[in-house]
Amino acid sequence: MIQASICTIGDEILIGQVVDTNSSEISRALGALGIRTDRMVSLADDHDAIIQTLTAELETHDIVITTGGLGPTRDDITKSALAELSGTSRYVEHAGQLEKVHEILHARGLDVLDINRAQALVPDTCEVIVNQRGTAPIMVFRFPENRFGHPATLYAMPGVPFETTAALPDVVKDIAAHHQLQTIWHRNLMTYGMAESALAKKIEPWETALPADMHLAYLPNPLTGVRLRLSVYGGTIEEDKTRVEAEIDRLKAILGDVIYADGDDTLEHALGVLLKAHGKTVSAAESCTGGEISHLITNVPGSSNYYLGSVTSYAISVKEKVLGVPDQVIQDYGVVSSEVAAAMAEGVRKLTGSDYAVSTTGLAGPGGDGVNPEGTVWVGVATLKAVLTRKYQYHNDRKRNIQRFAASALHFLLSAVKDDLSI
Amino acid sequence: MIQASICTIGDEILIGQVVDTNSSEISRALGALGIRTDRMVSLADDHDAIIQTLTAELETHDIVITTGGLGPTRDDITKSALAELSGTSRYVEHAGQLEKVHEILHARGLDVLDINRAQALVPDTCEVIVNQRGTAPIMVFRFPENRFGHPATLYAMPGVPFETTAALPDVVKDIAAHHQLQTIWHRNLMTYGMAESALAKKIEPWETALPADMHLAYLPNPLTGVRLRLSVYGGTIEEDKTRVEAEIDRLKAILGDVIYADGDDTLEHALGVLLKAHGKTVSAAESCTGGEISHLITNVPGSSNYYLGSVTSYAISVKEKVLGVPDQVIQDYGVVSSEVAAAMAEGVRKLTGSDYAVSTTGLAGPGGDGVNPEGTVWVGVATLKAVLTRKYQYHNDRKRNIQRFAASALHFLLSAVKDDLSI
Repeated sequence: MIQASICTIGDEILIGQVVDTNSSEISRALGALGIRTDRMVSLADDHDAIIQTLTAELETHDIVITTGGLGPTRDDITKSALAELSGTSRYVEHAGQLEKVHEILHARGLDVLDINRAQALVPDTCEVIVNQRGTAPIMVFRFPENRFGHPATLYAMPGVPFETTAALPDVVKDIAAHHQLQTIWHRNLMTYGMAESALAKKIEPWETALPADMHLAYLPNPLTGVRLRLSVYGGTIEEDKTRVEAEIDRLKAILGDVIYADGDDTLEHALGVLLKAHGKTVSAAESCTGGEISHLITNVPGSSNYYLGSVTSYAISVKEKVLGVPDQVIQDYGVVSSEVAAAMAEGVRKLTGSDYAVSTTGLAGPGGDGVNPEGTVWVGVATLKAVLTRKYQYHNDRKRNIQRFAASALHFLLSAVKDDLSI
Repeated sequence: MIQASICTIGDEILIGQVVDTNSSEISRALGALGIRTDRMVSLADDHDAIIQTLTAELETHDIVITTGGLGPTRDDITKSALAELSGTSRYVEHAGQLEKVHEILHARGLDVLDINRAQALVPDTCEVIVNQRGTAPIMVFRFPENRFGHPATLYAMPGVPFETTAALPDVVKDIAAHHQLQTIWHRNLMTYGMAESALAKKIEPWETALPADMHLAYLPNPLTGVRLRLSVYGGTIEEDKTRVEAEIDRLKAILGDVIYADGDDTLEHALGVLLKAHGKTVSAAESCTGGEISHLITNVPGSSNYYLGSVTSYAISVKEKVLGVPDQVIQDYGVVSSEVAAAMAEGVRKLTGSDYAVSTTGLAGPGGDGVNPEGTVWVGVATLKAVLTRKYQYHNDRKRNIQRFAASALHFLLSAVKDDLSI
């Protein structure tokens, strides 16, 4: 099995100012190729530390991927360390990256300074993958067998997470083109509303009976639920596909409605596909989720086809005046109640003229309201025929509660739309 | 300076299933003591890998802190590796931790099984800090100078984040009691609206003239702008503070309005502090940002004190009907225009009765509208006295454009509120 090491270069990780999310993303991408990451290292912007660490990692791994240390203001420590490691002191200008530097800075209305132009200079020992989203190129160093005892490749990637994400497919493609990869086949199902441990218990007999070359992974996420990923390594793709599909069919029969999407998906995207296919529209009335539901829905490209808008009613006056929630209902039942959730959903549906509407009213924290503890939310869903409400209770911090509330609301809405459309 | 290494043991980090947040938290706690973390390593649950890595880290560091690998189902790989590393094969039962194991399991209504009881067994070469939140004790190994060439201490902590967090103060106390600590002082300024390279150019003379023991770091973030962090190592805290403050004053004079907050902060928090202090309220009318502004504002605890709510008007009908944007304005100027941004801000300010309002209308992408390219946004800010608008152009993907739009809107709003309050 091909072994990889991921190295993060930069003081901001080491002093704890930034949490490293790149390594985890890269590791998942490598895992999908059947490549095992057996080490991750974070090291300082320091010439000797870079040389020593990368030498040790290249001696023990087939692939080393670095992120960070390539910013224009960093005195090029990483780049010069890589030049030294690869035995050169000569740099060449990469035309493609230089063009990209100009393009990016011009688009921002900025002049191209010498320090920007220097970003396109690379050691003459490397190949370049152009960074489409930033000014620092991805450098690929291919070391022959006699250097570290085996052929080894080093990919130096930028550290800004969105640049890393954007460049990762190109790096993956390069790895696949240059390595003898094992076949691997993944199949995802999206579930919501059941904790990882409860899911595991429910499907235990099925999971225990899986063939030895198949592996099930549980990938929980507060915004999308638990993703189940069934993987098989080593056969031919066609053979694997057929065998995996048979197991997936069994799993679907066991889990039923807990599955909300077949394949890798998100709640807001699954909802969008459904609404678009049926020519229906939706709106939202948010209180404790403060815009998160609307933000998730509109993150989906093309959401303007089915999303009309929302009202975030943090103040009671907005609930009453804009959404038309009767003052008496708030007096009688309290703001965090089934009745207010229902009135908010119905109110925004009428206000916008949408087919469906979702609402939230609750307490993200810190603190409860005397009646309801922190982490309580009432979700309302209005359709043309009915208004439904449901209560959820979570036990996280403010930000995480808001995410859980929004995801629960989207899931409740998705289920209600499916019911309404008899799907 | 005392040097530390933080090692994370466990496959879940390496396969990218879990993002490691412990290392960052531990590093910040060490940094506050003036201890520099110059390396972080994630390694697999593998006996040889643990022995090799920890030996190498102890040879080059005064303090090594491990997290993870101590769960009851892990076959005690980490614990037996630590026993071997410290030259013993004898274990002793720690009465305090055993008591805690019983207490924790009884509270959950569970029986104490042999594998739980075994958690309180530790190599006879270590000291124990009782884990108050979990069953695995914190083990402290103090290695004499002749072992690794210098006195070295290894702390083995549990990997469950909330147990790590709970145990950290005890570990910090132990470190402080056993080491001669040096000082370190960090000072942050938040900037917005200027790219990293342009900032660097503007403050180059100042940065070049910095004393050798001071270091400036640029930390860009799409939602909060570029954070500038000035650090000084090695003096006394009082002395360092005074010297850093003098440099910070010079930097403030150079950058002026580019700085939006003194200290580590976010745009939405800085805005909240300002509004709360002056008893003012705000609302938002969002189009292309689809709820992100509202989401950011409401992520701040206590935002209900000054945030009334928002309208997300994705559909033109909602802009007209709810926000009262005249159809003629949309006809004459187009949806993405200064005039519509102004009408939206004014509309939502009147609708909610807030003191201030912010609005966005633009194109997050993919695609432009024929007149404006993708990445264009008009931001409006309404105060009691005036309505201001400003256009921004970005060049990212949809999600990143939405973040940039929201951050620009918050920054424009913050500046306008400061002007309005003559700050």
